[in-house]
Amino acid sequence: MNTVKNVTVQDLRVPTSDDLLGSDPFHKKPDYSCVLTTIESNSGAKGISVVFTVGAGNDWVAYGVNELIPLVKNYAIDDFIKNPGELYQTILNHHQLRWLGDGVFRMAMGGIMNAMWDLWAKEVGKPMWKLLVDLEPETLIECIDWRHLEDALSKNEALEILRNNQSQKSRSEKRLNEKGVKAYSTAGWIGLTNDQILEKINQMKSDGFDAFKLKVGQDVAFDKARIQFIRNAIGVDAKLMVDANQVWGVDAAIEYMKELADFDITWIEEPTARDDVLGYQKISEALNPLGLKVAAGEQIQSPVIFKQMVSSGAIQYAQIDACRMGGINDVMGIILLAAKYELPVCPHGGGIGLCNMIRHLSIWDQVSVSDHSNTQLVEYIDFLQEGVFVNPVKVKNGAYVLPTHPGWGLEMDQKFVDDHLYPNGNVWREREKPNGVTFVVE
Amino acid sequence: MNTVKNVTVQDLRVPTSDDLLGSDPFHKKPDYSCVLTTIESNSGAKGISVVFTVGAGNDWVAYGVNELIPLVKNYAIDDFIKNPGELYQTILNHHQLRWLGDGVFRMAMGGIMNAMWDLWAKEVGKPMWKLLVDLEPETLIECIDWRHLEDALSKNEALEILRNNQSQKSRSEKRLNEKGVKAYSTAGWIGLTNDQILEKINQMKSDGFDAFKLKVGQDVAFDKARIQFIRNAIGVDAKLMVDANQVWGVDAAIEYMKELADFDITWIEEPTARDDVLGYQKISEALNPLGLKVAAGEQIQSPVIFKQMVSSGAIQYAQIDACRMGGINDVMGIILLAAKYELPVCPHGGGIGLCNMIRHLSIWDQVSVSDHSNTQLVEYIDFLQEGVFVNPVKVKNGAYVLPTHPGWGLEMDQKFVDDHLYPNGNVWREREKPNGVTFVVE
Repeated sequence: MNTVKNVTVQDLRVPTSDDLLGSDPFHKKPDYSCVLTTIESNSGAKGISVVFTVGAGNDWVAYGVNELIPLVKNYAIDDFIKNPGELYQTILNHHQLRWLGDGVFRMAMGGIMNAMWDLWAKEVGKPMWKLLVDLEPETLIECIDWRHLEDALSKNEALEILRNNQSQKSRSEKRLNEKGVKAYSTAGWIGLTNDQILEKINQMKSDGFDAFKLKVGQDVAFDKARIQFIRNAIGVDAKLMVDANQVWGVDAAIEYMKELADFDITWIEEPTARDDVLGYQKISEALNPLGLKVAAGEQIQSPVIFKQMVSSGAIQYAQIDACRMGGINDVMGIILLAAKYELPVCPHGGGIGLCNMIRHLSIWDQVSVSDHSNTQLVEYIDFLQEGVFVNPVKVKNGAYVLPTHPGWGLEMDQKFVDDHLYPNGNVWREREKPNGVTFVVE
Repeated sequence: MNTVKNVTVQDLRVPTSDDLLGSDPFHKKPDYSCVLTTIESNSGAKGISVVFTVGAGNDWVAYGVNELIPLVKNYAIDDFIKNPGELYQTILNHHQLRWLGDGVFRMAMGGIMNAMWDLWAKEVGKPMWKLLVDLEPETLIECIDWRHLEDALSKNEALEILRNNQSQKSRSEKRLNEKGVKAYSTAGWIGLTNDQILEKINQMKSDGFDAFKLKVGQDVAFDKARIQFIRNAIGVDAKLMVDANQVWGVDAAIEYMKELADFDITWIEEPTARDDVLGYQKISEALNPLGLKVAAGEQIQSPVIFKQMVSSGAIQYAQIDACRMGGINDVMGIILLAAKYELPVCPHGGGIGLCNMIRHLSIWDQVSVSDHSNTQLVEYIDFLQEGVFVNPVKVKNGAYVLPTHPGWGLEMDQKFVDDHLYPNGNVWREREKPNGVTFVVE
């Protein structure tokens, strides 16, 4: 019988804080990191996932994934394929682990689940999006934990959404194969100079990008000047989004964003705390009349928070992340909820491997769930691809090209892995670690 | 200079799943566990905290507390006393760890913070409640992270609440010294027989208790019979609460509780997911007209969720836990929010050490913040005290007796610690651990 034979978990970190790429008001000096989980079956296939973090704490997630191994070891691949909701429920509702709440527990669960899905895709030789697209609606809805979602979206409503899309799937797939999935680029990191940002924008424009995002929230005057600078660089027809990474309180967010209302901004992302549903409602009520839409999701820790955000008008763009919650099973529920409430799903990219994963989720979304290809923007960051992944993400004309390799496409370059293992890889061995601890405290 | 010299972290577990004490619909076989953190200063004083979990996963929290040690090592005790909000902010908003979300990260932070507060109390020789009561309002409000709370309660409003209570503090303290803090008892665990429950109730009644709680949610007919059984045992004048531990969806909770509306129930606790603010609103709107109030909090992972629950009418009883969030600093904000919105704070007790800690929080609440002593019920479970703690919690006439020993009163019996160290203490060494892992997977 083909079962899970072996699971390995690795802590990889890149010292991105050296040049402040990825910096935002809260995460001033991130070291882009990931927990790399590899699940090998008896057949020799390898399922791979990453859980992205920003440095310190990556080992907490690695510890968690390691601890979940006994729940997946010897699991029969056929059982997983028959019902990919069962393992998910086993971990999610583990009668003791459940006490740990979300955060690290849910991220670790995602590490296991996303690697198991990758293993499945490898066993059948399909890219993840194609595996999802080919699944029957009846199988898909069994992947989701409905208990705390069904007041906003019932299992039957979800089934109906999926069934209604069945007949047009092949047409949508063909269309996406031709034009890809529209992407946007985050260019304006807090720590970068105008010159650095301009260089990045011009490069992205030449790659066909016409939608850009920048970080805001430190200072209104500075932000106004930088927005104007970026607007001049991208042109009046391009889309421009801003991102505050939760740096404001609810009322502060409203006041700040009123100052930026005249800049034709497509969305303000994370204006306040990741779990403040009522706060987002208040912000949306104040800002929507000014033409400002609100987005959030990359740090939403549970599908229940997402359910409230999506179903209540608290946000207008649902920014799923591929590895913040419990993996693809959690994300599926949010994509279906967003379809019912007619929100575009605009996934969070960047980090390490996020872009590789979210393209699959967005393709499935546009083919099988909700064709909002005219409003869906998928984050793309031209960073940590070449030299990191064996098959780097491809974009063309400002859109993700549909991947053809089996699984998520997360196979990493062996030298990159060896160099960035923490704390003993080549990149880290020579660096000083304050107090002799395993993470950089600053 | 007196600084933090040494920090030790221990993983202790009790095989409570053997007799199903502590069982509920979701946590069917808990092994009551805690992470015991000891912070020693140069003066020789020892600050102690526990973080409670239900078994597997206790090591995740222990791992986290261990990882936070570098942030507290060599910290000057005087600096902590001058501004106990500074260390809290350092951990809470650590620019890399923040990415981990709540859950394990926030619980681990609570382990450090609560031990630091205990160390302070030991240095000055006061029980925790007295340390808190004696602090100036201006110091107390600096302990709290206001950024994401101030739309519901501003720093100035909190200051005003505290200042308004200054003049009556000594009178309240005297009164509580005489009559204690009213407690209630959880008797009706899912896994217990009627006979076992009756024995416990009669014992508690003889100790002066007149408020009881039972677990519900498995089966309406069973619950009706059990509620009637318990009501007969406790009498018509006693208070009776029920607890579903999140086992229902929103609509299912409403339907189920309508069936129980005639039993004179004081509150339904955790009718649905811990973070479903809008769900709790809907449930409260449906049930309040039937005379049923709603309670939650023991698994609320962030002050932002609590803020929404308390300020929007989603719940009518705020059930703080001493170690679910980031320690006393997080809890203070909730107690002040509850005061403004006039909700009784009815802390979650039981576990290991929870009762020891919450009594201090409730005394501070009733003396310094909000005298709702007529509606406040503090959970008490007569379990894991004798033989566990050097100074077990005392109750008299159904009320917590004000503790007099310095700190939280969490000093443990050395034999209990040695026996219950996981996985190599006497209690665990002989037990089989499936798959050779460090936690019991079932």
